[in-house]
Amino acid sequence: MKRTGILLVNLGTPKDSSKTEVRKYLKTFLSDRRVIKIHPIIWKPILNGIILNIRPKKSAKLYQKICTENGFPLLEYTEKQMENLKNICPEVEVTIGMSYSEPSIETALDTLLSKEIEELNVIPMYPQYSGTTVGSVFDSVMNYFIKSDRIVDIKFIRSFYNNPQYIDYFSKKINEALNESPIDAIVFSYHGIPMSYVKDGDNYPKECTKTTKLIMDKLGDIRYYQTYQSKFGPSEWLKPATDDTLKKLPSKGIKNILIVAPGFVVDCLETIEELEHENRNYFLENGGEVYKYVHPFNGDIEFAKLVKDIISL
Amino acid sequence: MKRTGILLVNLGTPKDSSKTEVRKYLKTFLSDRRVIKIHPIIWKPILNGIILNIRPKKSAKLYQKICTENGFPLLEYTEKQMENLKNICPEVEVTIGMSYSEPSIETALDTLLSKEIEELNVIPMYPQYSGTTVGSVFDSVMNYFIKSDRIVDIKFIRSFYNNPQYIDYFSKKINEALNESPIDAIVFSYHGIPMSYVKDGDNYPKECTKTTKLIMDKLGDIRYYQTYQSKFGPSEWLKPATDDTLKKLPSKGIKNILIVAPGFVVDCLETIEELEHENRNYFLENGGEVYKYVHPFNGDIEFAKLVKDIISL
Repeated sequence: MKRTGILLVNLGTPKDSSKTEVRKYLKTFLSDRRVIKIHPIIWKPILNGIILNIRPKKSAKLYQKICTENGFPLLEYTEKQMENLKNICPEVEVTIGMSYSEPSIETALDTLLSKEIEELNVIPMYPQYSGTTVGSVFDSVMNYFIKSDRIVDIKFIRSFYNNPQYIDYFSKKINEALNESPIDAIVFSYHGIPMSYVKDGDNYPKECTKTTKLIMDKLGDIRYYQTYQSKFGPSEWLKPATDDTLKKLPSKGIKNILIVAPGFVVDCLETIEELEHENRNYFLENGGEVYKYVHPFNGDIEFAKLVKDIISL
Repeated sequence: MKRTGILLVNLGTPKDSSKTEVRKYLKTFLSDRRVIKIHPIIWKPILNGIILNIRPKKSAKLYQKICTENGFPLLEYTEKQMENLKNICPEVEVTIGMSYSEPSIETALDTLLSKEIEELNVIPMYPQYSGTTVGSVFDSVMNYFIKSDRIVDIKFIRSFYNNPQYIDYFSKKINEALNESPIDAIVFSYHGIPMSYVKDGDNYPKECTKTTKLIMDKLGDIRYYQTYQSKFGPSEWLKPATDDTLKKLPSKGIKNILIVAPGFVVDCLETIEELEHENRNYFLENGGEVYKYVHPFNGDIEFAKLVKDIISL
């Protein structure tokens, strides 16, 4: 067998929850043209002049809230999945790379190549493809190798939104939660993207809808909603919005819900702060009674097993 | 199973053996900065002012010599391998792309994506990696997807210089030739590259040497030589040169040889014209007696089987 390497890629986190580090992180993230497609001539003044003067303070407070003794959950769980993979594939080199923080994708690739791997598997930790996430990882990985002679066999995974193990995992978790207490509906919340990106060819919402459908096929006849969260900026985003939906559901008699975010492999600001706190409050303040959040894989070895399945190891 | 596509990539050929078409082909080929690393400011005047005024006429004559009723062997056999693959993998979409002629890599990728493949396998038809061949294919394929949302699962094959089926194929063919008549030595001739490329990190000659060794391990105790052919331009290239070696061998008592070019999957100008004619003459003119050229895969279904093995279909 060829010497094999696996690169797990996730978004990244600020180094700590100080305003300076959060600003640095946001600047890197929001300077990616896969994320913000506005031309830099227009975008840079807005980013540097307005956004990076307002948002870091607000975001830093949120990051402080989700920070535990183990640091930020996104990094903690991504590292845990690297360890899980090393345990179940001891002959394989595994490392993590972050799109907008350290260790960067480039650093991670340096590490893997220094171990003389002959076959590289790249797994962006996003079940559904979007140019804003997976596309950005693709560009970084391939630009690392273009014009160089360090090329090895490369397998890049676009998405795994319909992988049976992935679907099974969320169905089972939801089923367990359903057995604990009766609910009126399940809300599937995915990270949103601007509608214009979809019009330009990003078929992210198709994959989200397919995931929801595949999970629901295993759960039977339960009412469900698919929503999009984390809208940023004034442009039109995918709809319906998670917060709007949650504010309205109680008035329709939906007072007991499960909420799940299958687009996330590990918990992060968008799930812990937005789903577990902010949106919970919207729901309860508007007459909701039971709001149960179903966590994604986080440190569960099942994700490492899923990766092993995806790359046919 | 995901809908799978295979892209077989080869170098290309002129459209026909007219001076105009040969010039067009050479211009495309010699404008690739993976092939010629001299800065365009220096290279372009040399290419347009000197090389493209001299070489097309000479090359056109050679292309006329190797043209058959089926056109140029490189294209004929590459197409044949596409058909072979379709026959042994009927559920897979297969197409060919040429680095420097039609159908281009971009056209081939358009074709495969229009068939809604979910997994793309790219096989450059070069057993040994070199930036000048495989690296160039990598850049073209990845640049097609970078900044786009057409990304699918992608598996890119760097090289297969040590694949057991590949090694077996050449060992068996050489063995068959050895059984026909006794010879004094085997000459393994690989396409050369400039020494400076190797110094810059292209480990092509290592893979050539490894291939030779693996084949020889299966053949037993026979004298052999490893040489490099097709030198172009004044810079230092990999040595020893095939032509120099063949001119000298008879004086050393090596008068009966087999010559084989395992770096080529299909016959082309470099094997038919250079090995079968030009170098044969050098050898015979200098006292050589038996000169037997062992052909590569060409249309043999064994190459399609090898591809199937390489991508684990």
